[in-house]
Amino acid sequence: MRRPCETSPERPRRMTQSDSLNRPYEECGVFGVWGVPDASALTALGLHALQHRGQEAAGIVSFDGERFHQHKGLGLVGDVFGDSRVMATLPGTVAIGHNRYATTGGTHVRNVQPLYADYEFGGLAVAHNGNLTNSATLKQALVKRGCIFHSSTDTEVFIHLIAISLYTTVLDRFIDAVKQVKGAYSLITLTPDDGLIGMRDPLGVRPLVLGRMPGYEQGNGGWVLASETCALDIIGADYVRDIEPGEIVVINNDGLRSLRPFGDQGGRFCVFEYIYFARPDSVLEGQPVYEARRQIGCELARESAVEADVVVPVPDSGVPSAIGYAAESGIPFELGIIRNHYVGRTFIEPTDQIRNLGVKMKHSANRPVLAGKRVILVDDSIVRGTTSRKIVDMVRAAGATEVHMRITSPPTKHACFYGIDTPEESKLMAATHTLEEMAQAIGADSLAFVSFDGLYRALGHANRAEGARRYCDACFTGDYPIELVDKEGNLVA
Amino acid sequence: MRRPCETSPERPRRMTQSDSLNRPYEECGVFGVWGVPDASALTALGLHALQHRGQEAAGIVSFDGERFHQHKGLGLVGDVFGDSRVMATLPGTVAIGHNRYATTGGTHVRNVQPLYADYEFGGLAVAHNGNLTNSATLKQALVKRGCIFHSSTDTEVFIHLIAISLYTTVLDRFIDAVKQVKGAYSLITLTPDDGLIGMRDPLGVRPLVLGRMPGYEQGNGGWVLASETCALDIIGADYVRDIEPGEIVVINNDGLRSLRPFGDQGGRFCVFEYIYFARPDSVLEGQPVYEARRQIGCELARESAVEADVVVPVPDSGVPSAIGYAAESGIPFELGIIRNHYVGRTFIEPTDQIRNLGVKMKHSANRPVLAGKRVILVDDSIVRGTTSRKIVDMVRAAGATEVHMRITSPPTKHACFYGIDTPEESKLMAATHTLEEMAQAIGADSLAFVSFDGLYRALGHANRAEGARRYCDACFTGDYPIELVDKEGNLVA
Amino acid sequence: MRRPCETSPERPRRMTQSDSLNRPYEECGVFGVWGVPDASALTALGLHALQHRGQEAAGIVSFDGERFHQHKGLGLVGDVFGDSRVMATLPGTVAIGHNRYATTGGTHVRNVQPLYADYEFGGLAVAHNGNLTNSATLKQALVKRGCIFHSSTDTEVFIHLIAISLYTTVLDRFIDAVKQVKGAYSLITLTPDDGLIGMRDPLGVRPLVLGRMPGYEQGNGGWVLASETCALDIIGADYVRDIEPGEIVVINNDGLRSLRPFGDQGGRFCVFEYIYFARPDSVLEGQPVYEARRQIGCELARESAVEADVVVPVPDSGVPSAIGYAAESGIPFELGIIRNHYVGRTFIEPTDQIRNLGVKMKHSANRPVLAGKRVILVDDSIVRGTTSRKIVDMVRAAGATEVHMRITSPPTKHACFYGIDTPEESKLMAATHTLEEMAQAIGADSLAFVSFDGLYRALGHANRAEGARRYCDACFTGDYPIELVDKEGNLVA
Amino acid sequence: MRRPCETSPERPRRMTQSDSLNRPYEECGVFGVWGVPDASALTALGLHALQHRGQEAAGIVSFDGERFHQHKGLGLVGDVFGDSRVMATLPGTVAIGHNRYATTGGTHVRNVQPLYADYEFGGLAVAHNGNLTNSATLKQALVKRGCIFHSSTDTEVFIHLIAISLYTTVLDRFIDAVKQVKGAYSLITLTPDDGLIGMRDPLGVRPLVLGRMPGYEQGNGGWVLASETCALDIIGADYVRDIEPGEIVVINNDGLRSLRPFGDQGGRFCVFEYIYFARPDSVLEGQPVYEARRQIGCELARESAVEADVVVPVPDSGVPSAIGYAAESGIPFELGIIRNHYVGRTFIEPTDQIRNLGVKMKHSANRPVLAGKRVILVDDSIVRGTTSRKIVDMVRAAGATEVHMRITSPPTKHACFYGIDTPEESKLMAATHTLEEMAQAIGADSLAFVSFDGLYRALGHANRAEGARRYCDACFTGDYPIELVDKEGNLVA
Repeated sequence: MRRPCETSPERPRRMTQSDSLNRPYEECGVFGVWGVPDASALTALGLHALQHRGQEAAGIVSFDGERFHQHKGLGLVGDVFGDSRVMATLPGTVAIGHNRYATTGGTHVRNVQPLYADYEFGGLAVAHNGNLTNSATLKQALVKRGCIFHSSTDTEVFIHLIAISLYTTVLDRFIDAVKQVKGAYSLITLTPDDGLIGMRDPLGVRPLVLGRMPGYEQGNGGWVLASETCALDIIGADYVRDIEPGEIVVINNDGLRSLRPFGDQGGRFCVFEYIYFARPDSVLEGQPVYEARRQIGCELARESAVEADVVVPVPDSGVPSAIGYAAESGIPFELGIIRNHYVGRTFIEPTDQIRNLGVKMKHSANRPVLAGKRVILVDDSIVRGTTSRKIVDMVRAAGATEVHMRITSPPTKHACFYGIDTPEESKLMAATHTLEEMAQAIGADSLAFVSFDGLYRALGHANRAEGARRYCDACFTGDYPIELVDKEGNLVA
Repeated sequence: MRRPCETSPERPRRMTQSDSLNRPYEECGVFGVWGVPDASALTALGLHALQHRGQEAAGIVSFDGERFHQHKGLGLVGDVFGDSRVMATLPGTVAIGHNRYATTGGTHVRNVQPLYADYEFGGLAVAHNGNLTNSATLKQALVKRGCIFHSSTDTEVFIHLIAISLYTTVLDRFIDAVKQVKGAYSLITLTPDDGLIGMRDPLGVRPLVLGRMPGYEQGNGGWVLASETCALDIIGADYVRDIEPGEIVVINNDGLRSLRPFGDQGGRFCVFEYIYFARPDSVLEGQPVYEARRQIGCELARESAVEADVVVPVPDSGVPSAIGYAAESGIPFELGIIRNHYVGRTFIEPTDQIRNLGVKMKHSANRPVLAGKRVILVDDSIVRGTTSRKIVDMVRAAGATEVHMRITSPPTKHACFYGIDTPEESKLMAATHTLEEMAQAIGADSLAFVSFDGLYRALGHANRAEGARRYCDACFTGDYPIELVDKEGNLVA
Repeated sequence: MRRPCETSPERPRRMTQSDSLNRPYEECGVFGVWGVPDASALTALGLHALQHRGQEAAGIVSFDGERFHQHKGLGLVGDVFGDSRVMATLPGTVAIGHNRYATTGGTHVRNVQPLYADYEFGGLAVAHNGNLTNSATLKQALVKRGCIFHSSTDTEVFIHLIAISLYTTVLDRFIDAVKQVKGAYSLITLTPDDGLIGMRDPLGVRPLVLGRMPGYEQGNGGWVLASETCALDIIGADYVRDIEPGEIVVINNDGLRSLRPFGDQGGRFCVFEYIYFARPDSVLEGQPVYEARRQIGCELARESAVEADVVVPVPDSGVPSAIGYAAESGIPFELGIIRNHYVGRTFIEPTDQIRNLGVKMKHSANRPVLAGKRVILVDDSIVRGTTSRKIVDMVRAAGATEVHMRITSPPTKHACFYGIDTPEESKLMAATHTLEEMAQAIGADSLAFVSFDGLYRALGHANRAEGARRYCDACFTGDYPIELVDKEGNLVA
Repeated sequence: MRRPCETSPERPRRMTQSDSLNRPYEECGVFGVWGVPDASALTALGLHALQHRGQEAAGIVSFDGERFHQHKGLGLVGDVFGDSRVMATLPGTVAIGHNRYATTGGTHVRNVQPLYADYEFGGLAVAHNGNLTNSATLKQALVKRGCIFHSSTDTEVFIHLIAISLYTTVLDRFIDAVKQVKGAYSLITLTPDDGLIGMRDPLGVRPLVLGRMPGYEQGNGGWVLASETCALDIIGADYVRDIEPGEIVVINNDGLRSLRPFGDQGGRFCVFEYIYFARPDSVLEGQPVYEARRQIGCELARESAVEADVVVPVPDSGVPSAIGYAAESGIPFELGIIRNHYVGRTFIEPTDQIRNLGVKMKHSANRPVLAGKRVILVDDSIVRGTTSRKIVDMVRAAGATEVHMRITSPPTKHACFYGIDTPEESKLMAATHTLEEMAQAIGADSLAFVSFDGLYRALGHANRAEGARRYCDACFTGDYPIELVDKEGNLVA
């Protein structure tokens, strides 16, 4: 019988239940730097640039040649690391960091990464973006064996697998561990002797890029690993290349080595990174995110044209696509919805009365732009449909005479098990409604999603068939390229 | 001899000096609501919508028919009022609130508004946006008379003038007080007996609008006062009208009364509210802010056309103008600069090394959009020139082949004494450089400011002459419509 | 009509109502030092030694020759000043400090002393122990005149009286102010030009002693003012003398001057300082407190002997008297009640169930010492009687066969208006019960209070008549030596 | 190679290094309660009564029949649990708690007990007082096996030993674990199915008592386990008996069961609990602590009489012995040293200048009692000698003409490895000085320690030989009854 422990957390207002085997899906940001002064400060900056990937918590572990140092906290990077006294506790020329996004369960400091462990062979820290599909199965076996878990993160599975590995060197233990896990993940590991280890899962579902600080070309230092190129840009690092699917890079004083223990299985990069998740100024697998979004807008304009007076993006992810749509259609682009930049996660407890007012804390209609107009709204996706309904209502209340919704992804019909936090299938509007029903439910005069052909054309491929081989689009198609071990097993939660 | 008291503040890291007679120029947001349930919650929402006017601190005073209640704190509205337990301490159907912007001096809770005082006739709370031009002079006289100041805000001058007035009723004392002050201000005052009092200064330099909650038309409640209409929108209040220059509105159980103790002196509304300060979805004095900015962009495109590949706004204030510029010029609009929404004010102490990297915490170049392009940058103003230089450099570093800067205001040559925090004249680049020198200093291939004619045409007037009579544009012209008493006096700071 | 403002305080759990005209009676500790390095650190130490006089809050104002600096906070001295970074914000060779005790009303930082004000002539800080008997009357007049109060302390009355005084020099204004107040008070004032000013009220009800740091005899520095000599001992200062009733000492670079604006009215020092309030190692008006208490115990043993097995003090104030009682009676002294030193003020919200268990957080019976014994309990006073009842019950529950209560003060029959926080008369057990009724109510087999003759003999006087001329014993006799202006007036609270 | 991780702790001012294998010696308080409403509140009260055993941190784990709940924090029990909202997060009728004392290393929340772990069979929480002598050896083996430690406490060794045990039931696993550890410990364990498990180490070096809430005699609930009887008294529980050396009691809905897996090895209770550690109102192994101390004082008076005017205890542990000394010798007992109750651990950073003043934050001389007197000081022990020197100096500075130090323990010549935090042997004054040298070093006119015969007579035994069989007195004799595995092994720290 399992009786989980409900910890009263550090911040009593955010009382949550810890979730032992049933971990949340997370999308996070990871960053690491090797062989530069102020490694922790560079890491804090990199995490800041990756803030959109996780706003719940942040952590950094540095290594000064003798000792590891760590600091973690709940909140934005600036909140956790904005104090120079904190930064002073993180000396060293090597550091890794992590931004955490988490659903309602598990907002505890003990879940904040990087995780650190003392092993027989010394210390090791791990930061991880993604989701393992067999972590519950592995965890059950590890607990049965006597391993004691202290967090509810997938990352701790790596920690224990490395600990119990029968191999001798850290790198062999690391490879032994990753061979046992299934899932989508980008990992950055910091060890005293083997150095900085970066890895993408065998299909490369989650991103990880390699960069280098200028001026270090002649030596062995200056290497940077990051979830996205925008984190290289903020510190002035040059982009070198993307880590390849299944590749392990080992960075230490002997330079950079690349290992391919999984061979070449062909990549299946997450297409939703282009549609929504990545920052528009990032370049992933050689493809600029902004241009991908803009091209999707153009495709949409061609596929599902409609007469209208104005093209209005739902900020912020819809903006490049709306620019593309406007350019292609010749209909003016205007900011008809204004985003309040100060929302954060702070207004957590509106009263019922306030809730009934239909208050929008995050968006407001720009009434003069919308009143009397036929409006094309461009948004990235429809999940439950409730947000889309509110936005359509808001635009109509501001006087729009017609509202046409254009979505820059195909219909989201399936849950993601590879690191994006989506609701279960039964709660996805597109899984249970026809297109017409969806249009009606969200109150739009018309609704169109980009076609798979259009989506993959926008990404530079000939058609859907060519694109589908290169990307994971399971949330739209249900074609899961990595085995869903836990889901298909008989785990008792 | 004056020896000011340096208080060690509530948050020891932000150690600052209090500034007795030399108060900072402030631009703030004010809000008040009369006769509705959950008045404080509505006020918190209104302040949230006005967050762009002040992010240093926030405060609310409510009145429940018997007692006043207040809560104030440093930080964003969501930080200060995001806890339902705090909101529960602010009961009543009347409330006023304030967002504070402050320069480096004086970040103390005791400076956070609304200010409250116990008088012989009862309590009174005041929230104030703007700047008095004779506050130091008045304060010196009041201190000489035996008044003891507890804050370094202009607002406390009102508090004391009301206290020592020889008139009997609160309203007479209030009018007695405002007759003695000079400056630009919007005031909201809460009293038990006279109700909610709203006022704009005689020239109406600072904004204040009147709204009403739907469903209250038949009664005496539901009135709302706010700095901008966006604060009406968030709570679903209908816009009624702008408070007029010099008008005092008194809202209580007898309804709304309007007083005009200063007669009609003609308004001189701050033109910089349209250019920069107000939120784009607000409508001020009947003119939508977004459309004003868009039109300025169109004027700029006509006035100072240049061959280029792309029009790029400096976010966020430059966006509507860049859209207008692009539409008018036919050159594509693209987001070539990405703003990081998570900056806040937290990264306060970058190390020198980090500073030397030229790190941009707030903006990043969208390299694929800029590389190899001739870029038109659209920004709202050039103050010291340092930020513009950094932005031009960043755009060039991203590969732009030409950078043409277009500014949506005339050159800023003079300090504002009416509530906008600008540096002194000697530090304004336009006050000491020719246009050519400025272009060179910021590194642009060309530089152009909108003309006065263009600016006022964009605002719907025939030309500069017609516009200049209606607006305060002192920061561009040096034509100060309100006497600068302290500045011209012999005050010893 | 008065509608006070209820501020939601800095620490939300201690939600309290501010109490405009109806201020709490306070007993506090004051300290000041002139002309020594680390003046603030010495002041923090002095306040630490005076912690028993007030545990709610602490504050220090220092002056560095140019500027005042202050820091205040709720909590113990060690909590407020235990951080070296805080102490670093308080430079200077002059400082004054204050420990505050407060009843349930008004635990706000704005009430924490010293109070500081900016005057026309410069800054001034005041710390004050005691209670004014005409503060409400004065405050009403001051508010009518236009003065605005920011705290609910008596001390702010001084601040305003000094501000509105028509005299020119600070010292004249100070004397003008104290001539208008009635009450019991010890004041320490810090001014840039006139230096450190110490004063006891005309009857010297509250204590204030003068000391000097060793090694400063040849110069003008090194002077120390403190509520009790224990604050001199902790910093190694030599005791010089008590400030005399009505005396004003002015300490600055010209040395120490003594003024006597009230002439010699004969002192009426608070006798309860000897019985309960002062620390046992202090010497007040030449009389060691410990020895006074010990002698009262001896008197009690002579006056009200009883056969018993053991003399047990109620810790801590009863200990010296119990030692005296035991020595005089020959009955063994034992620690039959153990005090828990860790109580603090933290366990604020016991559940009802816990309350019903009769839990004693502060004291516990030392069962082996009490079981089967006839016990003489020695305590300092009986106020409401509820605590005495609990203690007698606890001792009986531990197996005592007889419990004889001996009290080291006469019966407390009247409220104190001079700075000791006592309940109103109707709640004082001795005001409404006979001796026999009291014994029965508290469950004691016998009860005896020290006689007035015994009390004053213990203090070195011939008898009650001789002592009563020298002390204020109003709480026992109702003979109030200072006019109770507010109480006898017609103030509407 | 081992490179430990230096965590920047929750409270940045107390920056410390975590201490992987080299854990601090700890003396702590443990408490548990089974089958009563408000179990957590009773536990908080019990911990409050045991506060003297550990002031660094406190924690409670409760179980509500379905789930575990926990809350831990740094600070006093009142600080950690004084908020009713915190207590509300700890529902259930079963709870265990822990007070932690720690040396400078390792003040982290993750070290705060009780520790909780999720096992294959469910959750389990452990609280522990004492010290294992083979924990480093066990930990090294466990880490080698792949166990990952998250704290630096001995307690986590139990956690892992239980996890990897090959036995099936929790109780068998528990016994399997305790059979592998060596050391002095009292353990309280909470499990869902086996209930509350209490245990003392085979020699019973550390205390643990059993009590029961009145009114529960007929059922299975109401059981209480605590380090000392004073924790029973505060909640009104009746003392049942001491847990016996090596005994395991299992309390659940079937009642209380006693197991003796180690047989009867004869007890060796820590004699220093009587001399110093336990609270005077506790009764341990049937012997009242107060009376033990008093009798030691009597023995000292007989063994090492000296002519003097006054017997003065060094508060607080010296008080009962000083009373005994005074009673036996006929020399008056007086409080010549006053303890400041407000010290806490707050004044952590006195400036050098202050330190040079020789400031005593904790004790002050009661000058009038000491001046001109021949003083006998009674203290519990001399460790490094520095504190004794300061106290003798202080008493002399207050005017004592002679100072005779009497110590209520034999000379402390050896380190404790069983849970009392003592310095290593080389730093113990008695290990390196003769009696005469010690007297001279501390500045006393004479110095005497109680003899072993006297000590054991005071505890009710015939002589040293009889007592030494019953107690652990290793810190005085070096006769360690439990093997010092780590110390004698070849551990590389």
